Amino acid sequence: MKKILKISVAALCVLVAFTSCNNSGKSGGKSGALASNIAEKVYVAPGEHDSHYAFISGGYSGNLTVYGLPSGRLFKEIPVFSQFPTNGYGYSEESKPMLETSYGFIPWDDSHHPDISQTNGVLDGRWVFINGNNTPRIARVGLRSFETEEIIEIPNSAGNHSSSFITENTEYVVAGTRFSVPVPQRDMPIKDYKGNFKGALTFISVDPEHGHMDIKFQVLMPGFNYDLSHPGRGKSHGWFFFTTYNTEEASTLLEVNASQNDKDFIAAINWKKIEEYVNNGGGTMMPANYAHNVLDENTHVTTSTLKKEVRVINPSEVPGAIYLLPTPKSPHGCDVDPSGEYIVGNGKLSANLTVHSFTKMLDAIENEKFAGDAYGIPVLNFEDVLAGSVEQPGLGPLHTEFDGKGNAYTTFFISSEVVKWKLGTWEVIDRKPTYYSVGHLTIPGGNSREPFGKYMFAMNKITKDRYLPVGPEMEHSAQLYDISGEKMELLLDFPTHGEPHYAAAIPAEIIKENSLKFYKLADNKHPRKATNESETKVVRDGKNVHVYMTLIRSHFTPDNIEGIKVGDKVFFHVTNLEQDFDVPHGFAMIGANNAELLIAPGQTRTLTWEPKQVGVWPFYCTDFCSALHQEMQGYVRVSPANSNVPLKWSLGEDIE
Amino acid sequence: MKKILKISVAALCVLVAFTSCNNSGKSGGKSGALASNIAEKVYVAPGEHDSHYAFISGGYSGNLTVYGLPSGRLFKEIPVFSQFPTNGYGYSEESKPMLETSYGFIPWDDSHHPDISQTNGVLDGRWVFINGNNTPRIARVGLRSFETEEIIEIPNSAGNHSSSFITENTEYVVAGTRFSVPVPQRDMPIKDYKGNFKGALTFISVDPEHGHMDIKFQVLMPGFNYDLSHPGRGKSHGWFFFTTYNTEEASTLLEVNASQNDKDFIAAINWKKIEEYVNNGGGTMMPANYAHNVLDENTHVTTSTLKKEVRVINPSEVPGAIYLLPTPKSPHGCDVDPSGEYIVGNGKLSANLTVHSFTKMLDAIENEKFAGDAYGIPVLNFEDVLAGSVEQPGLGPLHTEFDGKGNAYTTFFISSEVVKWKLGTWEVIDRKPTYYSVGHLTIPGGNSREPFGKYMFAMNKITKDRYLPVGPEMEHSAQLYDISGEKMELLLDFPTHGEPHYAAAIPAEIIKENSLKFYKLADNKHPRKATNESETKVVRDGKNVHVYMTLIRSHFTPDNIEGIKVGDKVFFHVTNLEQDFDVPHGFAMIGANNAELLIAPGQTRTLTWEPKQVGVWPFYCTDFCSALHQEMQGYVRVSPANSNVPLKWSLGEDIE
Repeated sequence: MKKILKISVAALCVLVAFTSCNNSGKSGGKSGALASNIAEKVYVAPGEHDSHYAFISGGYSGNLTVYGLPSGRLFKEIPVFSQFPTNGYGYSEESKPMLETSYGFIPWDDSHHPDISQTNGVLDGRWVFINGNNTPRIARVGLRSFETEEIIEIPNSAGNHSSSFITENTEYVVAGTRFSVPVPQRDMPIKDYKGNFKGALTFISVDPEHGHMDIKFQVLMPGFNYDLSHPGRGKSHGWFFFTTYNTEEASTLLEVNASQNDKDFIAAINWKKIEEYVNNGGGTMMPANYAHNVLDENTHVTTSTLKKEVRVINPSEVPGAIYLLPTPKSPHGCDVDPSGEYIVGNGKLSANLTVHSFTKMLDAIENEKFAGDAYGIPVLNFEDVLAGSVEQPGLGPLHTEFDGKGNAYTTFFISSEVVKWKLGTWEVIDRKPTYYSVGHLTIPGGNSREPFGKYMFAMNKITKDRYLPVGPEMEHSAQLYDISGEKMELLLDFPTHGEPHYAAAIPAEIIKENSLKFYKLADNKHPRKATNESETKVVRDGKNVHVYMTLIRSHFTPDNIEGIKVGDKVFFHVTNLEQDFDVPHGFAMIGANNAELLIAPGQTRTLTWEPKQVGVWPFYCTDFCSALHQEMQGYVRVSPANSNVPLKWSLGEDIE
Repeated sequence: MKKILKISVAALCVLVAFTSCNNSGKSGGKSGALASNIAEKVYVAPGEHDSHYAFISGGYSGNLTVYGLPSGRLFKEIPVFSQFPTNGYGYSEESKPMLETSYGFIPWDDSHHPDISQTNGVLDGRWVFINGNNTPRIARVGLRSFETEEIIEIPNSAGNHSSSFITENTEYVVAGTRFSVPVPQRDMPIKDYKGNFKGALTFISVDPEHGHMDIKFQVLMPGFNYDLSHPGRGKSHGWFFFTTYNTEEASTLLEVNASQNDKDFIAAINWKKIEEYVNNGGGTMMPANYAHNVLDENTHVTTSTLKKEVRVINPSEVPGAIYLLPTPKSPHGCDVDPSGEYIVGNGKLSANLTVHSFTKMLDAIENEKFAGDAYGIPVLNFEDVLAGSVEQPGLGPLHTEFDGKGNAYTTFFISSEVVKWKLGTWEVIDRKPTYYSVGHLTIPGGNSREPFGKYMFAMNKITKDRYLPVGPEMEHSAQLYDISGEKMELLLDFPTHGEPHYAAAIPAEIIKENSLKFYKLADNKHPRKATNESETKVVRDGKNVHVYMTLIRSHFTPDNIEGIKVGDKVFFHVTNLEQDFDVPHGFAMIGANNAELLIAPGQTRTLTWEPKQVGVWPFYCTDFCSALHQEMQGYVRVSPANSNVPLKWSLGEDIE
């Protein structure tokens, strides 16, 4: 039996590898009048604006990218979990603490699922949350500044994949482990995985005013893999749903050993019930180290705090809060429709697409119709919770979103297509091939009670010949569709940076008016600021030298510094005095073992430099800021460690 | 007198700051049939390819981006001088040496001017060279793999700005210092700059077969700032031209003090004459540390070598090789037309645009008509070398390129426009506003004997309202024009990453057929490769543990490893066994203080991990590679330092 299964899985792998090639070559193009019509649909003329923002995860870039729709243009890469030499994120003193973890400074992560904050189930455009998949973390990005404002590490977790989805009033952002591990971590044989490893599902409360995150509780689930999740909404608000795979609890060769069970589970978690339990003092405080890093909105300095314990819940403590819904087969996406009634389990090895009914689930629970249990958690009967199936819609379903008009759109990786089908009747309405092998798809507001519709874009995993070749390593590719009609209409291929796992999109109007233009100098509370040239100075404190420097078109104050010695550590605290939109200045020190700083108007940023060689070393502005940008430079004289050259600085006059 | 000049400069600064605002608001857009026509001109339908590559420098990103024209889509960011978490560049063991310098490991630079290799003055599409402006370096990027293959550091230099331009058979790539410094570096007062600092202009030979770079000689010029340069071509092949500013040799408040002289210089260097001198043993070997980093094409491992001396030339050693052409005023761009006759000095504070004649320069030299000398270098008479001027063409000219049809296109930063004018008659043919404040512009082949014309794009320094707002920090913006007609036609605004100082563009046909699809496993000479699963192993060498691992859809071999201890240093040498285009795999170790690896088919890449905590830690593939990608994972057991758990590994079977 096992052998036969192995073969069928192997056959599937061949499909996985080669199906997409059947579609290769030029395709999807249009010609003549139709092409002209489509060209106009995506063309945003110079001076005009796109109608939608798309926040697309960077995957192994660790960051978040911001695109415009329908043009597909990349407006920004927001550094989140990875160092970003472009603006000094993760290199400047103010931003380095954002990448601190309980494991130390980690310069990289694998970002997966952005989700925009909601009020009453509608996108409110205040924040985007995104998960670090590798070193388990959740970040919050502010949508006024488009900056990472906070990162919280998730303890007891490993591969934070079923994250970071939010409840309909942003009460919680949820982080689910992908890999189960010993909890707490300890030295044990890998073969003892089964029954001993745990999967932590973490509920992080979000402060409604400032967005600050705090781990409310973790549920320590059986040692499955937790793949994706979505909140209940509307009628199912208060619940959260997680797909599981590897319910076999295999610890080696998962492509075979985790593909044995005919059905895995969707775990349904009544978080309101657990919240009530916790609010009444339930759960156990467990020692656990995790970092909590917050950008102070006044100083613009990030502080990293190491937290020492977390509240954990075992499922058996809160009877009636957790159930398992059998779902064929190794389900990946776990998607809830706008009404909150339908929970779609995208069984990636299943012939059919399974849709569960929230109402039927509640009925089954009420009637205690259980098929058994898994580690004490009640398992419901598949038939009792099934709303319906889309029969043989395609191969390898991964993810589903909704247009708010009663339709669902599901991606199929293996057969490389997007299929539109009707909720309730389960009939297929349209299908379009994707180039090639689509992962997620996104509809603006498609993960909320009120999708905005109009566009859908597919994030494809294989690019091959879609663009001019650029060597063995290609960007991934997205495809934008108009979904305003009955049939989907392909508009545009556009490349995406890193690996876009998921995206959140929103009409531009919700965000654009609130976008910050610059920081007010009067509000700058940085401890080492110099808010006008008369406040500039150079201060020695032992081997540390603090340079309080200002920038304004087109000079540094000071621009000549002497009295620095080999062995010193020089801190350049650089304040940009400009008070206008889009006038950043840069600061770079020749030969510094560091990145540069890009400093927005009104901000102070700090670069450290430990000069190793005597000499006269230039510094300069790295961002072309005026016709006299090339003149915006200065010199630091570095003397031997035992020199008695006095500390002096100047602008416009020689140091005597 | 000085006070008056100060005021005029200050007035100019006001212009610099505010002129662009006069153009703000929505502009440049078209409507109706015309918009439709333009939309079609830039629309590249799904399945179709762009007609041109544009290699755009990333400025303070330190990297090089690859765009398609006319779509303006970003196909790749090639990491050059900066760490790049997306694919582990600067983090993997194989790539870290590429960022070594004589100052140590430097994770960042400020990349400026890409230039494509040429044969007989025509772009041949083999390599792109690009300069690191901050820590002076030149990189060579291969256009088969689109990877950085070599970086050479430039000694005696500081702010490597008048770089990296190549001669018409790629004999030399040239690197000129921006800032003058003491040569050799030494402790001296900044005020002693004048007459004592030097500006090194470096000629780096390029091996015609492999492209390997070697510093042939450096010319130690007077202590001016060297801003930009271009090679002579055709009739002027054998010469190189550099703009200078700060001929005042000011060392503080340059926006005022380096704007005093009515004329600065273009330095004309007869490099063939100096080459002959050097080939006959001329020049002096001077002690100087600089790194030379080369990616081995067989192992794909970079080696960094520290070089110890460089050949320097003083201008007085080679009479008749160097002349100075007076050029108004603080000239920025130094551009040579396709015939090699005209040298355009873009005097950024000049009312007129100055064009020198190569023929007249030779005549003046032959007749020894000198106006004097500067530090012994003959200065020619302005009138003797002047070909003509474009009278009051705009404010703040920066750069000029050519269409090969007798026309030149110059950018004006302050008046924010591109002006088309005719070589020889100097008449203005067309002008178009840019949004906003344009720096460089690029025409495919515009820096060669044979421009390809068709498109021109302007790289603008200020973005403001051109796109949806994304907080205080915006991407820069480019504007694409059709230049096939008499008048320039604006087609598209597209955002660009970092600060695009310059770009090199080329018809796609020249490159696309040679683009590498994957690395052949049979050619993999990495010292720690495992080219099939039977070669995988785990080897302990004291505290170092080497894991020879393979990846193929959808498993790691091995995927269970035990016997690792706290205090070990684990080297994962990971080989991607796939042999198909666009099937990279990723490798990430949970909680490793490092980036991930992205491994192209056939390649081996190494990640180091120093586990600090006991436990069972997962690793996984970071690039969605198949329907069973989520199953592509494994575990490493980490035991205490004093543990006697034996070193074992497996795939598909438990470790007993």
